[in-house]
Amino acid sequence: MSALDRLVRALGELVDTTPASLADARADRSGHAAPGTPLAVVHAETVEQVQQVMRIATATRTPVVVRGAGTGLAGAANGGEGEIVLSTRRMTAVREIRADDLLAVVEPGILNAELNALLTEHGLWWAPDPASRDISTVGGNIATGAGGLLCAKYGVVRDAVLGVDLVLADGRLLHLGHRSVKGVTGLDLTSLVIGSEGTLGVVVGATLKLRRLVEGSICTIAATFPDVRAAAAASAAVTAAGIQPAIMELMDAASLSAVASLLALPSPDAGSAQLTIQTDGPAAAVEADAIAAILRAHGGATQVSHDREEGERLLAVRRSMHPAMAALGTTLIEDVSVPRSAMPAMFDEIARIEREYGLAIPTVAHAGDGNLHPNFIFEGAEPPEHVWAAADELFRAAIALGGTLTGEHGIGTLKSRWLAAELGDDQWELQRQITRVFDPLGILNPGKVFAHA
Amino acid sequence: MSALDRLVRALGELVDTTPASLADARADRSGHAAPGTPLAVVHAETVEQVQQVMRIATATRTPVVVRGAGTGLAGAANGGEGEIVLSTRRMTAVREIRADDLLAVVEPGILNAELNALLTEHGLWWAPDPASRDISTVGGNIATGAGGLLCAKYGVVRDAVLGVDLVLADGRLLHLGHRSVKGVTGLDLTSLVIGSEGTLGVVVGATLKLRRLVEGSICTIAATFPDVRAAAAASAAVTAAGIQPAIMELMDAASLSAVASLLALPSPDAGSAQLTIQTDGPAAAVEADAIAAILRAHGGATQVSHDREEGERLLAVRRSMHPAMAALGTTLIEDVSVPRSAMPAMFDEIARIEREYGLAIPTVAHAGDGNLHPNFIFEGAEPPEHVWAAADELFRAAIALGGTLTGEHGIGTLKSRWLAAELGDDQWELQRQITRVFDPLGILNPGKVFAHA
Repeated sequence: MSALDRLVRALGELVDTTPASLADARADRSGHAAPGTPLAVVHAETVEQVQQVMRIATATRTPVVVRGAGTGLAGAANGGEGEIVLSTRRMTAVREIRADDLLAVVEPGILNAELNALLTEHGLWWAPDPASRDISTVGGNIATGAGGLLCAKYGVVRDAVLGVDLVLADGRLLHLGHRSVKGVTGLDLTSLVIGSEGTLGVVVGATLKLRRLVEGSICTIAATFPDVRAAAAASAAVTAAGIQPAIMELMDAASLSAVASLLALPSPDAGSAQLTIQTDGPAAAVEADAIAAILRAHGGATQVSHDREEGERLLAVRRSMHPAMAALGTTLIEDVSVPRSAMPAMFDEIARIEREYGLAIPTVAHAGDGNLHPNFIFEGAEPPEHVWAAADELFRAAIALGGTLTGEHGIGTLKSRWLAAELGDDQWELQRQITRVFDPLGILNPGKVFAHA
Repeated sequence: MSALDRLVRALGELVDTTPASLADARADRSGHAAPGTPLAVVHAETVEQVQQVMRIATATRTPVVVRGAGTGLAGAANGGEGEIVLSTRRMTAVREIRADDLLAVVEPGILNAELNALLTEHGLWWAPDPASRDISTVGGNIATGAGGLLCAKYGVVRDAVLGVDLVLADGRLLHLGHRSVKGVTGLDLTSLVIGSEGTLGVVVGATLKLRRLVEGSICTIAATFPDVRAAAAASAAVTAAGIQPAIMELMDAASLSAVASLLALPSPDAGSAQLTIQTDGPAAAVEADAIAAILRAHGGATQVSHDREEGERLLAVRRSMHPAMAALGTTLIEDVSVPRSAMPAMFDEIARIEREYGLAIPTVAHAGDGNLHPNFIFEGAEPPEHVWAAADELFRAAIALGGTLTGEHGIGTLKSRWLAAELGDDQWELQRQITRVFDPLGILNPGKVFAHA
C-alpha cells in the first residue's frame, strides 16, 4: 500500500490532498516555493496522530516536512515533491498555566499572540516576540529559534523554553527537559531541538518559561537621523552607555519610504533613518530621557511619548516592514547578526555592497541586539545570480565582523549554501551526524539546512 | 611506544606522575575517589597542548578525564586506573573583555571569583554564582552546568554562555556558538556541551555573556521559622507573590547546627529553620520590606539589614554548608530540583525518608529556584546500602513531584544509576549515541554519566 493510502486509512479526513492546500504548503512567507507538489498535508490534532504519521513515513521511507502557520522566512517548512507535510497548526491546546511556577505547557500550533493574550489574564507573558507574532505559532518559534524585538532585554527563545515533547522519525515520543528552574540531567536536548528546523523530530508540546508582566509605564522614543550610519552609531552608543531598552528598532531610508507607501503615511526626508526605542519597567521614564539625550548628542531629532497606544502606533511602522517589502516584489530577506559594536561597520558594508552591485538593499535592524534584516527585492520567483552574489558578500562581511548568518530566521533552504562557510566543514559534518542519530533514514526535512547547495 | 611515553615526549614536564598528584586527581569534593590510579596528570597550558594530548589518547585508545579545580560533587572529573587526567586549570587567560558588547572570552581554568574580580573593574559581572565560586573554575561551571544562588533572577549557566571552543576526542578544534546576542546557525552545540561533563570534548575557551553590575543597594532579610516546612511554604509564598529576590536560601535545623559548630556560632533553637534572602537593584529596599511582611505572615521572625557587609556575613553561614557537612563525615550531597510550588511537598518527602530510614538528612535549598541539597552523612569511603536506598527514594520523590535528579551538580558517577530512570531508556540511548558522534572510540570520560551502575 502506498504512503498516501496508509495515511488515509489511518487518519481519514485529516489527510488533505486538495490542490489549494498542496499549493499553499509549498511556500512560506519568504515567497519561495519548494519544487514539485507534496503528497498530502496531514492536519494532526493529537500527539498520537503525529506518531501515526511518523510510523507510516518510516515504514514507507517517505520524507516529512513539519509545518506550523507557514510564516517562515527561510523555506524550512516548504513541502516539495512526494513529501508529507505534517501540520501541527490545529494543536492549539494550552494544557497548563502556572503562575506560581512561572511556566505554561502548550501545544505547538497556538499563535504567539493568542498565547500571550491568555497569559495576560494571569499577569504573565512569554517573552519571545517575533514581528510576526499575530500570525506565527509557538512551535514555529521553537523550530526556528525565532527571536524578535525584545531579545536584548528579555532573552532569546532558548532562554524561554524548559522542555519539549518530541516525536522521533520512527514515531517514538520523548519528553526532553524539565519543569524546574534548574536541571542538568544528561545532555540538553531541549536546546538542541530549538532552532533545529524540523530535522530532529516533531515538537508536539513545550514547557515554556514565563515572566510576570512588567509593571510601570512604557515610554517610546522616535528619533530621526540624517543617515543610517548615524542612527546605527547612536544605537550602539545607547547600548554602550549601559541603558537597556526593551526595544530598539532601526529603519533605513528605503524601508521607511516603503512602509510610508504601504500605510499611506507622509514621505520621510530623503536619506533619513529612524530609531524607535521603548523603555519599560519602573525606570522607564528616566531611561527614556537618558536615551533621548544620547540620541540628540548623536544628531538625532527626538520625540518622546509616554502614551502606550501612541508607542504601539510608532512601532506599527516597524511591524509593517515585511508586507511593505512584499508589495515591492519578491524579497530575499536576510537575517545577519553581529556584535552590537559592529552595527555601524555592518551598515558600511551594506552600503558598499549596494554600490558595487547597483542594488538597493532596504534594511531594518533589531539594533538593541545587532540583528539586521537587509532585503533584496527582485522580479520573478527566484533570486537572480547577482542577488545571490551580493547576499554572499553580505554573509561574509557579517562573519568577518564576528557575526553570524542568521539571528532568528534559520537556515532552511535559502541559507543552506552558506552553512558550512560559518560552521567549518568539521562542525558541519558533526552536526549532520547528530541529525542522523535522531533520524537514521534521513526522512525529516531532507534538502533543508544540511543540504549543500 | 606507550601512551605515557608519548605524552612525556610531546609535553615534557607538563606530564605529572608524582604520587601526590595522581592521588589528588582520583577524587573531587564529593569525597569519592575513582578506583585505581591514573596514568598521569597533564597540566595543559595551551590549546595546542590539549590537542596533542587528545591525538595521543586517540592513537593509543587511552581514556581521558578532563579536570579543572576538582571541586565537583558528582565524581565526573575523577581519574581512575590507566586514565589520562587532562587538567585545564593552568589555562587562565582572559582573552577579551568587551563592555560595549557585554561579552568576555576566557580560558577554562580561571576561577569564577577571579573572573568576576576582573570584570568588576569594567562595571561588569558574569552571573553564574556557585557556592564554590572562590575555588571552582569557569570551565568546571560550564562542564557541569553549575548554577548557584542567583539563578531564579539572573539565569543558569546556559543563559550566560554564547560559545565554546571544543577540542574533540581526535584532537580537532571546533568553534561552537557565536558572539552576537542572537544566532541560530545550525544546531546549538554550545548548549549541548554545557553540562556534558567531559563526555563530548575538552572546553578550551568560552565566550561568556556578561551583565552590567546591578546598581542600587543590597538588602538582606534573615528569617527564622519554627520548622523547615514553614520556611519552605514562606519561600514559595514569596515567589508566588511575584517578588523576585536575587538570592533566597533555606537551611534546615541540622544544617544550621552543623554550620554553627564549624564557625563557633551560638546554637540555633532546636528544629528551627532559616531563610536568608537578598534583594538588589533600585527597588531593593521596597522589595525587602514586602518580603519581610510575607515571611512574618508565615510565622517567620525577621531581621532586615541594609548593610552589604552584614548581608555577606549572613550569607557566609550558607556558603559554609559544604565544609560543615564534610566535618561530620563522608557526605553524599544530593541535588534534586523541583518546581518552586513543590518545595514544601519535597521537604515532607525528605522528612518521611528520614523517618523510614532512621537517618538525619541535613538539607539546604536554593529556595528561589526549587533546588535542594539534601546531605547523607556516613562513615567510610562508600555510601552504605541503606543510604543508597534512601537516596533512591529521594530521587523518585523529586521526579514524581515534576522535578529532576540534578539541578546543578551533574550526573558524574554518583547519579549515573538513576539517569535512565529520569530520561527513559529511549532518550538515554539517544543521548549515548550523540556522545558517540563526538567520541567514536569512547575515550572521553568512560564510566561517567552514561554508565549504567
